[in-house]
Amino acid sequence: MFSHAGHPHKLLYLEAVINALREDLGGGDITTFLTVPAEKKGSACIVAKEDCIICGVEIAMEAFRQMNQGLSFYVHFPDGSFVSKGAQVLEIEGMLTSILQAERVALNFMQRMSAVATLTRRFANEIKGISCRIVDTRKTTPGLRHLEKYAVRVGGGFNHRFGLSDGILIKDNHIASCGSVREAIRNARLRAPHPLKIQIEVSDFEQLREALDEGADAVLLDNMDVTELSKAVMFARARRPEVLLEASGGVTLANVREIALSGVDIISSGALTHSAKAIDLSLRVKQ
Amino acid sequence: MFSHAGHPHKLLYLEAVINALREDLGGGDITTFLTVPAEKKGSACIVAKEDCIICGVEIAMEAFRQMNQGLSFYVHFPDGSFVSKGAQVLEIEGMLTSILQAERVALNFMQRMSAVATLTRRFANEIKGISCRIVDTRKTTPGLRHLEKYAVRVGGGFNHRFGLSDGILIKDNHIASCGSVREAIRNARLRAPHPLKIQIEVSDFEQLREALDEGADAVLLDNMDVTELSKAVMFARARRPEVLLEASGGVTLANVREIALSGVDIISSGALTHSAKAIDLSLRVKQ
Amino acid sequence: MFSHAGHPHKLLYLEAVINALREDLGGGDITTFLTVPAEKKGSACIVAKEDCIICGVEIAMEAFRQMNQGLSFYVHFPDGSFVSKGAQVLEIEGMLTSILQAERVALNFMQRMSAVATLTRRFANEIKGISCRIVDTRKTTPGLRHLEKYAVRVGGGFNHRFGLSDGILIKDNHIASCGSVREAIRNARLRAPHPLKIQIEVSDFEQLREALDEGADAVLLDNMDVTELSKAVMFARARRPEVLLEASGGVTLANVREIALSGVDIISSGALTHSAKAIDLSLRVKQ
Amino acid sequence: MFSHAGHPHKLLYLEAVINALREDLGGGDITTFLTVPAEKKGSACIVAKEDCIICGVEIAMEAFRQMNQGLSFYVHFPDGSFVSKGAQVLEIEGMLTSILQAERVALNFMQRMSAVATLTRRFANEIKGISCRIVDTRKTTPGLRHLEKYAVRVGGGFNHRFGLSDGILIKDNHIASCGSVREAIRNARLRAPHPLKIQIEVSDFEQLREALDEGADAVLLDNMDVTELSKAVMFARARRPEVLLEASGGVTLANVREIALSGVDIISSGALTHSAKAIDLSLRVKQ
Amino acid sequence: MFSHAGHPHKLLYLEAVINALREDLGGGDITTFLTVPAEKKGSACIVAKEDCIICGVEIAMEAFRQMNQGLSFYVHFPDGSFVSKGAQVLEIEGMLTSILQAERVALNFMQRMSAVATLTRRFANEIKGISCRIVDTRKTTPGLRHLEKYAVRVGGGFNHRFGLSDGILIKDNHIASCGSVREAIRNARLRAPHPLKIQIEVSDFEQLREALDEGADAVLLDNMDVTELSKAVMFARARRPEVLLEASGGVTLANVREIALSGVDIISSGALTHSAKAIDLSLRVKQ
Amino acid sequence: MFSHAGHPHKLLYLEAVINALREDLGGGDITTFLTVPAEKKGSACIVAKEDCIICGVEIAMEAFRQMNQGLSFYVHFPDGSFVSKGAQVLEIEGMLTSILQAERVALNFMQRMSAVATLTRRFANEIKGISCRIVDTRKTTPGLRHLEKYAVRVGGGFNHRFGLSDGILIKDNHIASCGSVREAIRNARLRAPHPLKIQIEVSDFEQLREALDEGADAVLLDNMDVTELSKAVMFARARRPEVLLEASGGVTLANVREIALSGVDIISSGALTHSAKAIDLSLRVKQ
Repeated sequence: MFSHAGHPHKLLYLEAVINALREDLGGGDITTFLTVPAEKKGSACIVAKEDCIICGVEIAMEAFRQMNQGLSFYVHFPDGSFVSKGAQVLEIEGMLTSILQAERVALNFMQRMSAVATLTRRFANEIKGISCRIVDTRKTTPGLRHLEKYAVRVGGGFNHRFGLSDGILIKDNHIASCGSVREAIRNARLRAPHPLKIQIEVSDFEQLREALDEGADAVLLDNMDVTELSKAVMFARARRPEVLLEASGGVTLANVREIALSGVDIISSGALTHSAKAIDLSLRVKQ
Repeated sequence: MFSHAGHPHKLLYLEAVINALREDLGGGDITTFLTVPAEKKGSACIVAKEDCIICGVEIAMEAFRQMNQGLSFYVHFPDGSFVSKGAQVLEIEGMLTSILQAERVALNFMQRMSAVATLTRRFANEIKGISCRIVDTRKTTPGLRHLEKYAVRVGGGFNHRFGLSDGILIKDNHIASCGSVREAIRNARLRAPHPLKIQIEVSDFEQLREALDEGADAVLLDNMDVTELSKAVMFARARRPEVLLEASGGVTLANVREIALSGVDIISSGALTHSAKAIDLSLRVKQ
Repeated sequence: MFSHAGHPHKLLYLEAVINALREDLGGGDITTFLTVPAEKKGSACIVAKEDCIICGVEIAMEAFRQMNQGLSFYVHFPDGSFVSKGAQVLEIEGMLTSILQAERVALNFMQRMSAVATLTRRFANEIKGISCRIVDTRKTTPGLRHLEKYAVRVGGGFNHRFGLSDGILIKDNHIASCGSVREAIRNARLRAPHPLKIQIEVSDFEQLREALDEGADAVLLDNMDVTELSKAVMFARARRPEVLLEASGGVTLANVREIALSGVDIISSGALTHSAKAIDLSLRVKQ
Repeated sequence: MFSHAGHPHKLLYLEAVINALREDLGGGDITTFLTVPAEKKGSACIVAKEDCIICGVEIAMEAFRQMNQGLSFYVHFPDGSFVSKGAQVLEIEGMLTSILQAERVALNFMQRMSAVATLTRRFANEIKGISCRIVDTRKTTPGLRHLEKYAVRVGGGFNHRFGLSDGILIKDNHIASCGSVREAIRNARLRAPHPLKIQIEVSDFEQLREALDEGADAVLLDNMDVTELSKAVMFARARRPEVLLEASGGVTLANVREIALSGVDIISSGALTHSAKAIDLSLRVKQ
Repeated sequence: MFSHAGHPHKLLYLEAVINALREDLGGGDITTFLTVPAEKKGSACIVAKEDCIICGVEIAMEAFRQMNQGLSFYVHFPDGSFVSKGAQVLEIEGMLTSILQAERVALNFMQRMSAVATLTRRFANEIKGISCRIVDTRKTTPGLRHLEKYAVRVGGGFNHRFGLSDGILIKDNHIASCGSVREAIRNARLRAPHPLKIQIEVSDFEQLREALDEGADAVLLDNMDVTELSKAVMFARARRPEVLLEASGGVTLANVREIALSGVDIISSGALTHSAKAIDLSLRVKQ
Repeated sequence: MFSHAGHPHKLLYLEAVINALREDLGGGDITTFLTVPAEKKGSACIVAKEDCIICGVEIAMEAFRQMNQGLSFYVHFPDGSFVSKGAQVLEIEGMLTSILQAERVALNFMQRMSAVATLTRRFANEIKGISCRIVDTRKTTPGLRHLEKYAVRVGGGFNHRFGLSDGILIKDNHIASCGSVREAIRNARLRAPHPLKIQIEVSDFEQLREALDEGADAVLLDNMDVTELSKAVMFARARRPEVLLEASGGVTLANVREIALSGVDIISSGALTHSAKAIDLSLRVKQ
């Protein structure tokens, strides 16, 4: 179902992988050089040490490939698979020195991407059956936005804008700098590139009404409790049935279903990317 | 007390900041361009929305500076400060468009660095008074190792090796590839650069004895429970009083004190860097 | 009127300037080294050798600054100014060797950006008073898209999407690969990020009807003559008054007004960026 | 005849291709991701929509290869071929998503390179049979000098110096900064690297005489009309038969033959690279 | 014997090779382009023009490969081989233009790496049979440290720390800034990462005693003559048998054996890397 | 006299300095961090420990500035100065930690550049009074060509071509690949860019005659002894008085004067750059 999540092109993550390898290598893997025969071949396996949604297999393979083009891979569980504790996810065969040198970097990417995918899947499962999307934010790890947004998709979530240029989202600070909701939307409409909708964040009903009257394409209802949210949705739908409504702020696994049932189209949560606990994965060399 | 944590030199993080800004900017901050007057000046403040140890102020300032060399800063709480919910950490004055364009990137760095510092401080406090260090691992976010290891120091922890070239740590996979603990240590000693100690990971008493007999400078006792750890420490100290002993695996806030009391010199934990929950920080434009 | 065109941030063009300087410098400006005394100071002026809309002054200054931080500038005509043949646009004072080394690169940027701005202004003037925008395309010079899209804005035009990630534009090749207009729009809606409108290119009335029925937010009417365009506009407005309509293909200064009068909201033209004839500018050292 | 124009090595253009792809991709090709099945294969063709000299086929293939190493190519018309409107230049087979993602970048390079080659060929044809070269200048697109100078060669033109370090060309601003033609040439000779000739720009007969007397290896006759040029050539040949003579300024297709007949060895024109109108090329996916 | 010197991974030298090729190519190899038929194939050989230890064969091959992936290689003498004047070291087959374009860069790397390996071998041979290592310093060529330190290993030497982060070496300037040997060692011990030993440079017996008393793991005896060295060794061994002792300063081929016989464990010499005379190597195209 | 040697622009060496600092810093200067108080200020001095021509002062300052923009400098001896053993060349004032972190990199550049300048000066002095230049080759350290060629100029030498694109030098391998001296020169002339002279390497009189007859602008007389050289010069001058003659191969301080007296215009020597012994320089922190 989530099998086609649109893997980012290598041009968008290759530097992150190479930088991570260089960061870890420093002047070279002295321990492996000292203890492992240069030409010794063998195989190793990335093992899940807890239940999770796997994500980042292609990135891990790229890390190994950067060390040694001649390694072979057997993908037992592709991105998006649910695996149980103990599952062997990815097998790598070839020069042991190469495998060991890329081990940590490969795991560091996968443990984080799998964490995001796993947490997103839990949110997505909570709202299954409701016509509502769970989406990410720009609260991502610096340098890893492509990979984390992909992990959200792998988990069954959707992406909000990637960055500041592929979405117009007028937030409280913009409104404060500009003067009012009205002013902000009017200014935006004057020169906004036509492929982008105009979305605005509101924190009360007055702002909401103003946003609807000015014809905002989408409204972000910020930090409202579920009762307020439901009222806001009814109010908005009455005035502008087609307007997109997004809820954000204080979203948890415990309350996400209730929020979704308020009738919003979209629920956004920074926690998907900034607070997912790393999935425990390890690499085992096979004898 | 932790005021001098050895801030990484700008050469070591500048690219991470610039990459993060470019990643977020894409083709430019269209919302700010559309809604905020180009020349409007004002001030804004980074506010802590929960109690925490602040870390990353210099990185945040660098993000703002990259947008606009002409901004001014007032650091109310430098790195390492404990702040309460609601505290104003950093004030920024100048062109509002510049402040808004760097907002998210500045916060993304600080929320992660403060998370690592805060979690580390909690661990450090648990073992206060015991002659034992809490140290990090290489399980860091790809591309941010310098900053996360610095955050560990800010939190009162210590650093294990930075990467593969500034420490010799013979792990299970190396031993498996090499044949035995004995073999591995002997090979390492033959050609190891003299400024580095030789450390080896052991998982049972047989390996521990072998490591001690071969003269390992430091031993990592992996995944032992507290009872085993205490026995291992006594066993090792009897044979080689000066050997460094490190415990790792399954370290939590609940058990870290007990582990420290086993007599090990060092406790390492990947969680410090890979699973710290982001600290909630936000930027408020002042009217 | 076009004074605030949203100049791209230096992070988005600095590398282009530095690369251009390195490309030109090679191993160094041997002629200047051989003939101009190292410490000689003086002033020089960029002069327009034909009437034009000036664009790229900031980029030119950056090129000079890269050569020498100590140069001074006097901007007689900022970006967006109309200047007549002979006008002195930018004065530079300081070390002559530095001025001469950056001369060609500064002019190469400005001659192209001013060309785009000037041509765009001519198109914009043709449709003045009509509620219709002239917009650019992605047919830009590789590596200079930020600067050329800015020049379009300086000229009084508007920007279409910057690249492949900040707009959904389903073109003939996508429709061919996907099967039909219907299929393409439905697939897009399923997973499109909500901040983006869905636009589709159609080449006949059947496709147009399908696009309108499937709820496309915007339609690009490709390569229709003015009569067809007018019919298409009436047809579309009748069915979906709010749909955005864009015309493209074969737009010239001679026919742009007529096209605009057909009632489309947007006219796009690749010629704005790919075929503007360089504006003749030169640098004169003053005695 | 122009089949061996010395294609630039990939090291000299690969970054330009990758930068252009990244510039266009932004966060990824969202339209193709949404509408084209990930694994769908097919073929596509770059078609000339006007008569032209083709140039840039290798660059276009590199753009496609960067997206997907597994694409296949059939080059129907290599660089330097004259093709008529409708000709199929390059066929690409493989994953459609990859082809569509690189389409615009591939075309953006080819439309510009083919433009330069086509215009140069027209100039070269005008002076066919006369012992005179048409050469380019440094008025090239920032970042694309290697490719545009190659396109000039493909068109049958020759290259002037690539940049500031592979030719000595003393121009009016150098003479002004230095004091006189005499001073400039003498200074240059004192320390000029011996592999380089000394060329100087002159604007009148007095300067020409001085240049000849000081032993300039080559003289650029700037902005002279044809009558003046002819006189200058006779004057120079009488004094120094072996001196190289170059004409520049105001060169057009209408007057280039007349200029060549004046007897100069070289005619240089910035228009070859800065003002060639893009050749209309498009990519068609075949059903 | 020195066959496994731990070749640096390509990630650590690839940029140095590419930069060197670009530095040499500039705008392209004009001579080869003008004189060698584009498709002509042939073979060439790198020949030693003096006796030496060969080093850098893999780097040379990488330079050729960067020019042309299709070249074939025959390694007659791998790194670490002793070859006599006239020996054919590496044969390259394929397009002659590619071979000629990379020739100089390939040789520039090999002549320097072979020089370091050859000089190191001479030092290593001098102290053969004595339990003492010859090690390098950080006095390496900027940008080539990985390659020069590898060449030292190929020559039979050992590496001191790679850079400032993989070894603690407290030198005279640190002691001067800190106050005293005692102070410096105590400060270091407080926060030093545990994988690193603490080494300190001393210039007299008072400092030596202080260093030993404070428990330095290693001591560098700087600029002592052989008599002093021997006394220092005896003094140190008596107090702390396990302490590592390193001699540096004024080490030559003439005195290195005598120094080694003083009983130090390590002799370091900057000359290994900064003053080795280039080995004369050339490339010959075979007819 | 050599005070204006045309210092390379910072754009041409900045990356080399930054790369060298990063190479040395690795994860940071751990020793300085541990032993030197973060805010301690002081001064330090670069001292010559042998007589030499100083070169690289600006590069050294750039290395210090990269560490800390706030350092102050006092240049006692600018590039090109002769200094005696013990001379204080450059004084640096400010934060001691910054000074110590850049120390080694600054010295590594200066010791090599001063070595090249000093050796070149010795060659230049040998041929003083004779109308003959000593020039360098492309046998430079990979990545440092700009700096080493500048050091040659500082030493009083001249530069041969910088790289493969700013000079045509047909060497033995080109002649072998092309067929003959005649063929090679004719091919070159057909398409050579006019700003470049055509130079060819010859190894006997037959080749020399052919080169002269074909009109080579310059001839490199390779590996001839002084007697042959003198004959070759006379032979060449008789046939083509204006031809440039260069000698290369086996040039030493002992024979350079004799070679110059043979009448050649230019003597080239790779040893200037590849085999200069590093000048001994050190940095002393002042109490």
